[in-house]
Formats: sequence, C-alpha cells, structure tokens
Amino acid sequence: MNKILVIGGSAAGAKAAARAKRMDESAQVTIIQKDPDLSMATCGYPYYVGGVFDNRAALISAPFGVVRDADYFQNNKGVTALVSTEATAIDPDKKVVRCRSVQGGDEREIPYDKLILAMGANANIPPIPGREAKGITTLTSMADTDYLRRIRDEKKVRQVVVVGGGLIGVEVCEALQHSGIQVTLIEALDQILPFLDWQLAKLVEQHMQSQGVEVICGVGVQEFLTANGAVSGVRLQDGREIPCGAAVLAVGVQPNTALAKDAGLELGDFSGIRVNEYMQSSNPDIYAAGDCVEIPSLLTGKPVFAPMGDLANLQGRVAGENASLGKRATFPGTIHSGICKVFAFQAGSTGMSEKMAQKAGIQGYTAVINASPDKPGFMGAKPLISKMLVDADQRITGYQCVGPGDVSRQIATAAMAIQGKLKVAELVNSDLPYAPPFSLAIDHFIAAAHIMQNKLAGLYKSISAQEVWRMVQRGEKAHLFDGRTEPEFQEMRLGIGEKLLPIGQLRARLSELPQDKNAPIIYFCKVSMRGYESARVLAANGYTNVRVMEGGLMAWPYPREK
Amino acid sequence: MNKILVIGGSAAGAKAAARAKRMDESAQVTIIQKDPDLSMATCGYPYYVGGVFDNRAALISAPFGVVRDADYFQNNKGVTALVSTEATAIDPDKKVVRCRSVQGGDEREIPYDKLILAMGANANIPPIPGREAKGITTLTSMADTDYLRRIRDEKKVRQVVVVGGGLIGVEVCEALQHSGIQVTLIEALDQILPFLDWQLAKLVEQHMQSQGVEVICGVGVQEFLTANGAVSGVRLQDGREIPCGAAVLAVGVQPNTALAKDAGLELGDFSGIRVNEYMQSSNPDIYAAGDCVEIPSLLTGKPVFAPMGDLANLQGRVAGENASLGKRATFPGTIHSGICKVFAFQAGSTGMSEKMAQKAGIQGYTAVINASPDKPGFMGAKPLISKMLVDADQRITGYQCVGPGDVSRQIATAAMAIQGKLKVAELVNSDLPYAPPFSLAIDHFIAAAHIMQNKLAGLYKSISAQEVWRMVQRGEKAHLFDGRTEPEFQEMRLGIGEKLLPIGQLRARLSELPQDKNAPIIYFCKVSMRGYESARVLAANGYTNVRVMEGGLMAWPYPREK
Repeated sequence: MNKILVIGGSAAGAKAAARAKRMDESAQVTIIQKDPDLSMATCGYPYYVGGVFDNRAALISAPFGVVRDADYFQNNKGVTALVSTEATAIDPDKKVVRCRSVQGGDEREIPYDKLILAMGANANIPPIPGREAKGITTLTSMADTDYLRRIRDEKKVRQVVVVGGGLIGVEVCEALQHSGIQVTLIEALDQILPFLDWQLAKLVEQHMQSQGVEVICGVGVQEFLTANGAVSGVRLQDGREIPCGAAVLAVGVQPNTALAKDAGLELGDFSGIRVNEYMQSSNPDIYAAGDCVEIPSLLTGKPVFAPMGDLANLQGRVAGENASLGKRATFPGTIHSGICKVFAFQAGSTGMSEKMAQKAGIQGYTAVINASPDKPGFMGAKPLISKMLVDADQRITGYQCVGPGDVSRQIATAAMAIQGKLKVAELVNSDLPYAPPFSLAIDHFIAAAHIMQNKLAGLYKSISAQEVWRMVQRGEKAHLFDGRTEPEFQEMRLGIGEKLLPIGQLRARLSELPQDKNAPIIYFCKVSMRGYESARVLAANGYTNVRVMEGGLMAWPYPREK
Repeated sequence: MNKILVIGGSAAGAKAAARAKRMDESAQVTIIQKDPDLSMATCGYPYYVGGVFDNRAALISAPFGVVRDADYFQNNKGVTALVSTEATAIDPDKKVVRCRSVQGGDEREIPYDKLILAMGANANIPPIPGREAKGITTLTSMADTDYLRRIRDEKKVRQVVVVGGGLIGVEVCEALQHSGIQVTLIEALDQILPFLDWQLAKLVEQHMQSQGVEVICGVGVQEFLTANGAVSGVRLQDGREIPCGAAVLAVGVQPNTALAKDAGLELGDFSGIRVNEYMQSSNPDIYAAGDCVEIPSLLTGKPVFAPMGDLANLQGRVAGENASLGKRATFPGTIHSGICKVFAFQAGSTGMSEKMAQKAGIQGYTAVINASPDKPGFMGAKPLISKMLVDADQRITGYQCVGPGDVSRQIATAAMAIQGKLKVAELVNSDLPYAPPFSLAIDHFIAAAHIMQNKLAGLYKSISAQEVWRMVQRGEKAHLFDGRTEPEFQEMRLGIGEKLLPIGQLRARLSELPQDKNAPIIYFCKVSMRGYESARVLAANGYTNVRVMEGGLMAWPYPREK
C-alpha cells in the first residue's frame, strides 16, 4: 500500500491528494494542514471582503454547497486530512514527517512512501518601521479575510492604505472602496500591475482614480505612523503623510520552503523548490506543487516563480498522479497568463510584455497598441485597449488588454494563440465566434493582428503615446493632427498642440498640410483607425514622415485638455 | 490608374473597397450597391427587431456614430458608392459591368481593371404553398427588419411562426418573444442549431421552451394558411395547424451568383463562386468575397459554403488588397466557428461536430461531454455544457458549448486551440487567465481536456445520455446510481430507476452494490464529477463494467421526474 503524504491542503495540496487517491484507491493518502480550513478559495478572499457575497463558508465549499472539511475529504475523497496540524520537519532518510498539533502541541511522526509538498507561499513583509502595529495586515489567510471584512462591515475605519499595486493590492482597493472607505494605494514602482506595460497600467490607474481611489506610484513607504500601538497613518519617502485606520500589505509573496530547505531539497533562483517536469524535487520520493515551487517560463525557458491559483491546481494534479503511479504526467510551465477585475475595468496579460522582452534581452520583436470596442455600438460596446507583441519570426509572443470591455475572452484567445505558436499571417484570418452580443465582426484580437500585419508590412508607421508626450514636453517641432469630427473634438481632446483635420475633409484640405513633404507629421483619432487612414492618404501624396499615434485618445495615458 | 469595381456594399464589399483604396490611394474604387444603404450590420437586425436598441441608424453607422452613406464613403474612404444601383451583367471580355438605377431605370456601363464580387446571398424560399401571402417574410434586408420591428412595436400580431431553427431563426424567436408575441419555431430536422450535436441542441431547445417559445422539431411545414391574402396560420406535415399573424422564413441562404454564372465564372458544389486562396475567381481579374463564394473548410480541406459576417469581412480585406496590389494576401478558410445568444443561453461551436465527423467518414475520433460552472459559486456561477472532439492523433478538432455561462470565451479559446492544432497533452496544462470573476481555477475548457485525457487513458469509462435513455426505454437491465446528496436528490432527479448512493457514503455502503462484479453499473451526479469518483472507487473494488453518464443531470436532454 502506497502511503502518500501531502503537506498543505489548499489549492495544490488538496488537488494532489484527491487526484492521487483517484489514481490509486488502495493508496493511503493523508493531508497535513496547519490551518483549520481546507481547500480555501484564496483568490476569492477580496470578493468576500468586498461584500460580493456574504456566505463565508462559500470560500471553503464544493460547487454543490458542502463545506470541504476533514469529514468531506474522508468521505468524498477517501483522503485523511489532519487540520490544525503543522509539519515541523521532514526526514527524507527515514521517510517520515514530524508534525505537531497547533492547539495541543502534541508531536507525532507520519511515515510516507511518497511525499507531496504544497506549503504555498508566505506574504512578503517589507522591513518598514512600525510594521508590527495593530491594524496592519496582509490578505493571505481566512483570518486576514475576516479582519478586513469586519473593517468593511463595522464602518469604523474610514481610511485605509494599501501598500503594493499588484493583483491582490488592486483587488483589495476595490473591495474596500466599494464599502465607502477612502482607499489610498501606494506603489513604489512607477506603475501598478507589473504584468502590464507602463502605458496600459496607467490606463487602469486612471480608472481607479476615477472611482475615487488615490493611487500614488513611484514612492515607497518610509514608516507606519502609530498611536497607542495601532496604525494611524503612513509616511511616504517623499515626506507626505497619509492618515489611515488600517493598512494592507500586498507586496508579493515568497515560496514557503523552510521545511524543504532543511530537508536538503534543491531550491532555485527565487528560493522556490526546484522540480522537474514531473513535479518531482531533487529527492525522487518527494514531489512539490503550487506556490512553493519554481516552474519553467515557456517564453524564456528559465525557471520563474509564478504563484497563481490555476497553475497550483494543474501542478497538484500532476504531482498527485505521479505520486500514485510513478512518473507519467508532466507539467510544462507557464506563459504568464493573468487577469483581474478593477472596478469597471478588466486587466489581463498573457505571454511576454515589452518590459519582460527587454529584460530578457530579446531582439527583433514588434509591438502594437490597438484600441477598439469589444462589440458593436448598438449592443452596448465597451472599449478595449490591447498591446500585441510578436517575435522576430512574427509569432505572437505576448498580449495584454485592459478596459471595460470583455478582456477575459481576449486574453484567453491570445493565450491559446501563444500556446499554438501562431504567426501573424495566421492570426489575421482567425475564425473566432462572432455574433453582435459577443464581438465585432472583426474581433478586437484580430484587429490587433491586422494592425500588426500592416506595421510589419510598412503600411502603418507609428509612434507611441510616450514618444509623442516626450516630444511635446521637449518642445520638439511636429505637426500633430486629430482626424476625428468637430463634435468629437469639442467633447474630448488632448490639447497638446494638435490641429483638427477630419479624415472626411482631408483629401480636400491637403493644402493646409505642411509644404515640406519631409516634415514630421503625427496623426491620430479616437482609436487611430482614422489616423491610419489619414496617414495612408498623406503617404500617397508624397509625405515621407507621417506616423500614427498608436491607440489614439483611448490609449492616451496622460492628462487631457478635456 | 487602377479602376477597381466592387459589386455589393455590405460586409465584404465595403471592406474590400476600403482596403483596396488604403493599399493604393491612386486607385479609383467604386461600389455598385442595389440597396439604398451601405455597410449594413445584417447580424444586428434581430437585435433591432427585438428592441435591444431603437436607433435604426446604428445599423448603418461607423463606430463613432456617423452614418456610412455614399458621402461618408466618398469623404472618409475615398470610395465612390453608387447606391440604389443594380449590376445587371458583367462582360469579362470588355471588362465592364452593366448597371441600372433602381429608381429611374437608367442604364450605364462601368469599366474596370479589377472587379470584386460581393453580392452576398439570397434567402432560401422553400416551395411551400401559400408562401406568397402577405405577412410572410425573411430577415435579410433593412426592409425585412423594418417590417418585423413594426410587428413588435404595433403589438397587433399576437402569434408568429418562425420556420427554421438556425442562427437567424432562434434569434428572431427571442426578438419577438421578448415583446410579448407568442412564437412557435418549426424545424423540419430533429434539432435546432445544426452546428451543434443533437444533445446540446436539445438543451438549448429546453431553454427556449422554458422561455415560452414553442419549439417543434422533426416536422416540416406543409402549407401556409391564408385569409384575405394574408397568412393566418401554418399547417404542418403531421396535420397540426398553428395560427399566426405573421411568419418568418429562416431556412438558410444560398450564394447570389446569377451574375457570376452568366459571366462564365466557375461555381462550386454549393453554387458559390469558386475562388483560390487569393479570393480570385476563375477569371484572374475578378475577385470575390463574402456570402457569394465557397471557401475551404480547414477541417476537411473541402470547399464549403460558410455565409458568416466575420469571414465576409476577412475575405473582403484580402480581395481588396489583392485587387490593388496583386496576389499578396491570402485567406485560408474556415474552422466553422459560430455563436449565438438564445435568451439567457449562449450556444457556440468551433471545429468539427460529431455529426460532421461522421458525415466526413472520419475514424478514430473521441468525444466527451463536460458540464461544470463557468466560475466559482460565490461569484454567481452559471453552468456550461460542452463537448470536445479530438482526432486519432489526440489533437482537438471540435468544441461546442451551450448554457447560461460565458460560452463566448470558451469557444474563442477552443477556436485558437484548433487553429494551433494542440494536443490533449498540451490542453490539460493550458495557462488561461484566471481570476474568480472570470473562470474557475481549472477553467471549464481545461476541465473538458482533463476528462478527455482520463477517457483516453481508460480511467474514465463513459456512456452517453442517449445510450442510457435507449436502455431505459428498451427496459434493459442496468444498475443506475446517482452520487449526489439527499437534498440535491429531493430537489431534482431524473427518475429513470436510479438509486441514490452519495459518494460520501459509497465506501461504507459497498455491500449495497450488485454482488455480480461484472454487472453493468452506470453512475452519474449533477455534472458527473462525483459519478467519476464513484466509478473509480467501484473499479478499485473489482467492478468491471462501471460507466459514468457524461455530463450528468446538467447535460440530460430528456424529461426529468423533477
């Protein structure tokens, strides 16, 4: 009888245990779980905090409504779960795990034939003075969740500072802001949501500001201010002070690998447990899965730390099968797909960002920004702004998308295109499901591929909003044209020195353009489709230096005149 | 100067003309359009009929709100559009098109260097007696749309019969039913939505019935009954009579190719214009695109007639570019992606259905049904029921999905997986964007791949709902078990002789199972996950003939006891 022991009973551990038992009913499968709960939907914490739902038990229930406690695991899964039990040491020679009851302190040793490590990750706690004050929390446990939910429900705390603008940070902002709390988000980097490139992240930031969240980027926290041992505010590195009755630290996590390290398992560059494609550690009888491991990036081939709930489940499934049946199942790695909801926006990314490509020293890639609605105007279109990256072979290697439109479908589409290593020539004629309730006749994703194809063919010469902004800031001379209609211009405009010249009048008003056909001209419109059409007309009329500002007004990450 | 003439100004024609001009500003591009309107959003007609929006002009407007009339095309696109002008003949030797003003009847000849045919399709009018009666319409033009919208707005007609259960048919049902009209849908085949396999189509049909639409499948219309020259009812082939004040014929379309045929162009098996990958007809100076052509199925390699708005646009783009610049751009074909909204359901398909595979004589494929929610219960999960098909090489070749959940993302994901020719081994570890507002930690699509992998590995032995139903009907002996909980069983159950044996009690109640370990046993639950778990337990206990009913109660296409 195969004795399979699993340390950790959340995503990866619970999945691994259940899969192991299904693969071999005769195996004795045991979970050691430090927390009192099992199978917690950790990604759901912010939504419970925010009051999207009120039934706390839903966070630990099966889809058919039964709480996944130790009885559930025993009866439904045939798995013994020892909750409130902490694993304190692994002895890989004796093949036992020592553990201790969290309440009583009783110690015992549990033998194993195969061990699966799924201890998850620990929240980073940066060494900020005052961090021990009351009212400062992370959001990584049911206890944290209960605390923040109480803050929401009791309505005593009126101001909260969230430190860290990653996924959890922005989700917490929304959760608390919805309940009438004034939220300030502090991000030491120059943008929130690091999986996005700067320009798209700024659009999300603008949206958060529009919803009442104060977003401060590029400044770190110097100190937590306290009164009577409780947090009363935050002092930033630039001296600003922000009062608050509670603070949330959301500055990432690190693999929880103390046990693994002590047991002599190899760790990787990010201190995650090193595993092979079978999710097997450097000890052949020990598998590992979830937020305590490193996995390959399928983009660079290098190990990365990718603590995502979906990947944890997939890895757990592989580890569980292999613990039961030997090395059969494999987990190849990640393409870094992620998504989050931020108020009325969605923000997602898959594959490589431009930042990531630059960091990896990748040459010859091409990026374009596309802005266009997710479906027809008459069906309640909402804007999408996306960025597509292709490599030197013109294969799609990255895609990110933000906006109030259906980002989820966009990123799922792109994730599969990246996984299939599709080329631009294939993407431009993609056969995606179309009907007016769901997309445009030419889906936003395909439109991005069309723009990419035009750019690669030299038909679409473009300039980024950042470059235009720099030119304007430096006072560089360029002729800026907005190709929209007069009413659109009156309603909203950049106000950076552009002249209105609607595409509908362009062919008749060519004389108003610079006489010098080599003069730098920049054209744009709401999304830059009319900007592109205008640039084509000018190119045909001998202008040699016409560029389209990618994404137009919709992708403009700076202040507008109106 | 290249004179490019385009016959037809809706999806393919308008796109081709605009693209041709952008590729070569010096070209003279002219559209001949019989209708008074241009660039009609034909796929939007049912939504205007149904009152999803009231601004009729939105059907013919650009995204920024300007009506796409002849002036718009002239000014914004540099394209001359001759509306209310009918092309009456093509002379490919003289390279002229003869046309006639619809109002005045004036005739003229327009010369071309390159011609693009985009005449679309005509609605099929089956030879049913009485079909000329007043009140019988199709839904293929703005005039049809106006007529049906009036029926909705005036509220005089109380009953409508829709003949044909394809995309347009079901969309019209919803549009009219929403406005309080009693709608009956008649479909001569044994199911609606022919792109779906029977079982999934039945689930959509059940949903339509639940919304008050009477759906009658498997019976054709024998005759339209009339009173004073207007339709008053429909007599079916089985003798039933259904009274109605209007009838909509939605029994498909056929390519509009009279002009092409007269000009000697080759037509294909479905009477569509035969084109090569450049969208070039048998005459090298004549391109064709949209609903008047045949294109390759990328699944079988054979030509098909695929009159879809999205493909028309993509083909128009290719035809336009090539008419301007010569043979450069290519259009490879279709994987038959489609989707529609049907009340609170979505229904979509991409790639091959099982029906299509059988018809094409394809061997060695495997299909599975998956039923599971689109996201966590606490985020307002909605069910999805899908069917995945893989070929003998275990590459995904088809996927269909129905239900109130986010089908659109599912089908888009699958379309890209099919385009990328991904194998099951790759799909099971797909890295899709996950967050609770958008999907489960293991996305429904990935779950389908997991079931497929289990089935291919022999871990999951299954039986379809249809086979179970046939066994029950025939009185064949089998032991049927429902693995859900008692409260679930009391709330809803099949009532086909099954016994309740919850998975949570199974290991303790093995003695209640048949003594004969070779007895046929069928297990299911709500979605058949617990059915699968139960089957694994029984297999481990020596039962040799245990099968899981695919999709469980959620995919059951027959009546239930409760």
